[in-house]
Amino acid sequence: MTEIDIRAAAGFLRKARLEEALREAGSALDRVRDGSGPGSEWLGWRRVLRRPDEELLNRIERHAASVRKRADMLVVCGIGGSWLGTRAVLEALRGTLPGESPEILYAGHHMGGAALDRLIERLERPQKDGSRPEVFLNVISKSGTTLETALAFRVLRAWFDRRYGADAPSRIVVTTAPEGGVLNELVTAAGYEKYEIPDDVGGRFSVLTPVGLFPLAFAGIDVRSLFSGAVSAYRALESDAKHLLDYAAVRYLFHEEGKAIDVIGSFEPELEAFTGWIQQLLGESEGKEGKGLFPVPVTYSTDLHSIGQMVQQGRRNLIETLLVIDEPLSGRTAGGAEGADDGLSYLNGKPFHEINRQALAGTVEAHLKGGVPVIRVLPGRLDAFSLGGLIYFYELFTAVYVYMLGLNPFDQPGVEAYKREMYRNLGRD
Amino acid sequence: MTEIDIRAAAGFLRKARLEEALREAGSALDRVRDGSGPGSEWLGWRRVLRRPDEELLNRIERHAASVRKRADMLVVCGIGGSWLGTRAVLEALRGTLPGESPEILYAGHHMGGAALDRLIERLERPQKDGSRPEVFLNVISKSGTTLETALAFRVLRAWFDRRYGADAPSRIVVTTAPEGGVLNELVTAAGYEKYEIPDDVGGRFSVLTPVGLFPLAFAGIDVRSLFSGAVSAYRALESDAKHLLDYAAVRYLFHEEGKAIDVIGSFEPELEAFTGWIQQLLGESEGKEGKGLFPVPVTYSTDLHSIGQMVQQGRRNLIETLLVIDEPLSGRTAGGAEGADDGLSYLNGKPFHEINRQALAGTVEAHLKGGVPVIRVLPGRLDAFSLGGLIYFYELFTAVYVYMLGLNPFDQPGVEAYKREMYRNLGRD
Repeated sequence: MTEIDIRAAAGFLRKARLEEALREAGSALDRVRDGSGPGSEWLGWRRVLRRPDEELLNRIERHAASVRKRADMLVVCGIGGSWLGTRAVLEALRGTLPGESPEILYAGHHMGGAALDRLIERLERPQKDGSRPEVFLNVISKSGTTLETALAFRVLRAWFDRRYGADAPSRIVVTTAPEGGVLNELVTAAGYEKYEIPDDVGGRFSVLTPVGLFPLAFAGIDVRSLFSGAVSAYRALESDAKHLLDYAAVRYLFHEEGKAIDVIGSFEPELEAFTGWIQQLLGESEGKEGKGLFPVPVTYSTDLHSIGQMVQQGRRNLIETLLVIDEPLSGRTAGGAEGADDGLSYLNGKPFHEINRQALAGTVEAHLKGGVPVIRVLPGRLDAFSLGGLIYFYELFTAVYVYMLGLNPFDQPGVEAYKREMYRNLGRD
Repeated sequence: MTEIDIRAAAGFLRKARLEEALREAGSALDRVRDGSGPGSEWLGWRRVLRRPDEELLNRIERHAASVRKRADMLVVCGIGGSWLGTRAVLEALRGTLPGESPEILYAGHHMGGAALDRLIERLERPQKDGSRPEVFLNVISKSGTTLETALAFRVLRAWFDRRYGADAPSRIVVTTAPEGGVLNELVTAAGYEKYEIPDDVGGRFSVLTPVGLFPLAFAGIDVRSLFSGAVSAYRALESDAKHLLDYAAVRYLFHEEGKAIDVIGSFEPELEAFTGWIQQLLGESEGKEGKGLFPVPVTYSTDLHSIGQMVQQGRRNLIETLLVIDEPLSGRTAGGAEGADDGLSYLNGKPFHEINRQALAGTVEAHLKGGVPVIRVLPGRLDAFSLGGLIYFYELFTAVYVYMLGLNPFDQPGVEAYKREMYRNLGRD
């Protein structure tokens, strides 16, 4: 189970306020549980864990395994919640996959023509043995009208038709709303295999639906274990959410104090994309009505050498959230220098994990001394089960915390603003 | 030449204050030019352009071409300014390279043992034709003691010795300070080829020295054109820096007003890593003594589907800087739908570039209406020459703007804080 260490951060807050905020967090959690908060028609991310659909999991596993056997590459065509979760889990669990796994490529998350050119060039480029790669496609869009994804899908669909002819439809998997929309029409017309995105699950809460589960299963991720971890976290948090409430209370108080930025990161390169998933989950949920802490993903120690200076000594308007993985991902040690002395003899034989943990400890000390409240998030290990738990933890945390701000965590009214202007410029009716 | 459009942003500022700030920007620029500002011993990034070293460029081009001919992969081992610039230019100009270019892999920018395991597994994995990849290494560290880089270099050096035996030293290129330090000792002991990082150039200003030029030339980037573009920008900006001063003045005023965040991005996926380079350049230069705008890199329209909601409707404590590329990177058009209607007929035949530009126009309109000042940076095309010019433009801009804040743009005293704690924990003397 994910634990939260708020001790260091709480030192920046008055105790009475924290107790009050904890009570407010508890009442926000009640509103999530009893469905009395705003946007409660969007609580499907809880429903899918409360009543797991075994048949769906079986179908995804069987289908993904059969595609995987024949494929060199799967193109995942989606944007926002339709790709960030997949990428997050895949990168986090990369170390659990065999080195020669088929590749996942991403499309439909931008409108760069040259980037799409390069993707298609990749699909066509002969491999070292002269063979052309075997390619499959999973297009993911609830409405079917998201411009970036629809545009890339139009181009890729035509490419599949040219490349595979009558066999093309059997290589395309569509993940979309149960009914309605252009993608459902295309499914009917072409006979693509289809997965449903439940009506009551929004994009940024959808990674544990077929949106994430199919491509992840294809990649070789143990999605059953990922899902079980989330189910297990769901059950545990229904009976004891103390750590989650602690976290919501302190983050709420820093928001009330006027902090502007939440630097969210870890010391594991594997979690870089996961912090990007958190950025969307939190940012799109709390960034409305003039509120919200701006979530900035970082990967340490890498980014200590770029943005670390500003975190340490810039404006004191930020907090920091660090995901800490206890269990080593690798047994690699620093060994000893061969030949000439390389100045690192004080590290001889030390495990990388231990050195990295000391960099973490040094960073926490330095940032606290520099006036940055640091919250530590402790998911335990980095495996599919724990990660599933961490995903649900963050989903529930987001709902609770954003309810405390007095907002609907599940809408995104501001995302329409640029689209209105854009569609007018493009002459859409 | 890079131009700046501040008109929309200036609408958020009082005219009299802008005029005053423009005078201050001019005087800051004078201090850069006459070397009378703090940190003036670090102006080598100007010197290398004032007196281009033709011999060095020739050597790099010849050497890189000969390595390139024999290599499948080059591992670039560095952190901070020793890799961000290389990655930024390589990604930006990816479209100018042939599809089958040798690969650049990165190491030495983290202490993740598992990520290093996977890198080495990549180096050893047989290619599709059964052959083992031919690998070269460029280690880049001015001091030679940067922990992440030194640690990875120790491991990789041992790997090269095992894999290539007596031939290993001929596959390793060292880029370091002219004299002193562990890397220079290893160069002497093993006979590695060496490039010098000039004493008067700091890491985040070093991409146009061998730090960036050697790996970029290896990758197939036209480094002569990149460098010429920077030289040309240097000369142009010595006689007319109006756009740069506009930019410095408005950013300074938004900083004075208490804005917290500068969201820096573009609508070209190719520029994602470049905005990461800007993040370090600005953030590490201005984030000190309790000052600085926190630079947050974004890639639109991708991130409009994650952090766009917060930019549009979150706290009004941010400004936005968008790099706009005029010339299409690709002639790809939306074509027409094949078979069933896909709901995009209003886009039939429209170039991707045009659609993307309308997304940009819609975003600028929507963000301005939402209270976000938007600065547009216009480098013209995305080729090596223009990019070299943009790099120098941003270096000079950083120096001028940070002088306006009353800070030394060239030091990073806060980066030492976590290191002190870490080295104590690790038992280094």
